[in-house]
Amino acid sequence: MWKIFCFPLCPFSRKVRLALSEKGVTYEIVREYPWDPSEKFLTYNPAGRTPVMRFDARDLSLADSRAICEYFEETGTSKPLILGSAVQRAEIRRMVALFDENFFGDVTHPLMIEKLTKRVVLRLPPDSKVLRETMRLAHEHLDYIDWLLDHHRWLAGAQLSLADFAAAAQISVADYLGGIDWNGHEGAHAWYRVMKSRPSFRPLLTEKMENVPPPAHYADVNA
Amino acid sequence: MWKIFCFPLCPFSRKVRLALSEKGVTYEIVREYPWDPSEKFLTYNPAGRTPVMRFDARDLSLADSRAICEYFEETGTSKPLILGSAVQRAEIRRMVALFDENFFGDVTHPLMIEKLTKRVVLRLPPDSKVLRETMRLAHEHLDYIDWLLDHHRWLAGAQLSLADFAAAAQISVADYLGGIDWNGHEGAHAWYRVMKSRPSFRPLLTEKMENVPPPAHYADVNA
Repeated sequence: MWKIFCFPLCPFSRKVRLALSEKGVTYEIVREYPWDPSEKFLTYNPAGRTPVMRFDARDLSLADSRAICEYFEETGTSKPLILGSAVQRAEIRRMVALFDENFFGDVTHPLMIEKLTKRVVLRLPPDSKVLRETMRLAHEHLDYIDWLLDHHRWLAGAQLSLADFAAAAQISVADYLGGIDWNGHEGAHAWYRVMKSRPSFRPLLTEKMENVPPPAHYADVNA
Repeated sequence: MWKIFCFPLCPFSRKVRLALSEKGVTYEIVREYPWDPSEKFLTYNPAGRTPVMRFDARDLSLADSRAICEYFEETGTSKPLILGSAVQRAEIRRMVALFDENFFGDVTHPLMIEKLTKRVVLRLPPDSKVLRETMRLAHEHLDYIDWLLDHHRWLAGAQLSLADFAAAAQISVADYLGGIDWNGHEGAHAWYRVMKSRPSFRPLLTEKMENVPPPAHYADVNA
C-alpha cells in the first residue's frame, strides 16, 4: 500500500492526492510537517518537502509532486490526466507549472506564511498589507482562469486534465485561508464548484489544519 | 526551425539548450529579458518567463522548461534523457526538480539578484552578507553532488540524464557569477569538467552577458 507524507494544507500534496484518487490508486496518509520534519521523512526526501510517496514493501520512495504525477501517469492503466497529443500534453504541463509556481508564489505561499506559519509556528499576527496584495494577485489569476474557460471547457483544453487538479489544489488551500473572492469571476467559480463536487475532492474538504479553522463556506460544494 | 527566447544567464534556458543540442535539435536564439519583456514574448508566454520555444510555421509555442524537455523527450527519436524504468525516470525528475527549485532558490537566484539584476537593472552594489550565505549553501549542494557521485556514475544513476544537464545548467550560471568554489569537492568538480567538455556545452561557455564579465576560469574546460 502506498503512503503519502503530507500535511492538510500542502497544495502540492493535494494535487497528488486528487490525481491518485481520480486514477483509483489507494493510499494511506502520514502527517509530516516540513517545519518540523522527522528523521525518516528526511531519508525519503533530503529536500525536506512534502509530498513524498512511499511503498515500504518495495523500499520505494518518490519525491517532487510533478515527478510523482508523471510516475503514476506512466505506470497506471486507467484515466490518463496528462493526455492528448504531444502539444496538448505540453500545454497541460505548462499550466501545471503556472499554478505550481506562479499561483503558489503569488497567492498560496504568502497566505500560508501569513495565516499558517505565523499562527502555528511563529505566533505572530498576519501582515494586512501582504494579505491585500495577495488578494489583488489572486484576482489576476482568476481573471486568467476566466479567460481560459471562455476558450475551452477545461483549463488546458477540451478535456479534464492534471492542469485542473493543479489549479483546484492551489485554490482550495487559498480558499481555506480566506484568500479567494469569487466576485466578478463567474466562469472560474462555476468551474471550481464542479471540481469541488468530484468524489476525489471530498476527503480534502473535510480535513482540518489544527488551530487554523476554514471559513464557513469552504467545504460547501454549492458556495 | 525552432526559436528559443532566452538570455545568456537563464539557467532554465541553459538546461533546455543542452537537452536540445544533445538530441540534435537545431534552434535559433532570440534574446529576451524577463525584466523588459516584448509584447510578442508575452503573447507566447503570459507568465513572462524564459525560456519559450517557438515554431512559427506551425504557430506553436511551448513554455516552462520542464514541459519543453518532456515535449522533446516525447517527440524526439534519438538520445533519451529521461530514461530507464518508471522508478528511474521518477528519480531523474526528482533530481531535475531539486536543481530547478532548491539549487536555484538557494544559490543561482540570489546570485542573479545580487550580481546581475542589481548591476544591470537596479544599479546597486551586491549585498556581501547574501553572497556569503549563498556560498555556504552552494557548498551544501556540492556536498550532496559529491555524495551522489560516490554512489553512481552520473547524478541520477548509471546513465547520463536530464538530471546532469539541469544541475550543470544551474552550476554554470552560478560559476559565471563567481559563486562556485570547488575546494573540497573533487567528485563534483571532476563530473563538472566532463559536463563542460561536451560539445553541447561549448556555445554556452562562449556567450557573455552584457556588462557582466565571467571570471577567467569560467570557459576553461580544464579549470
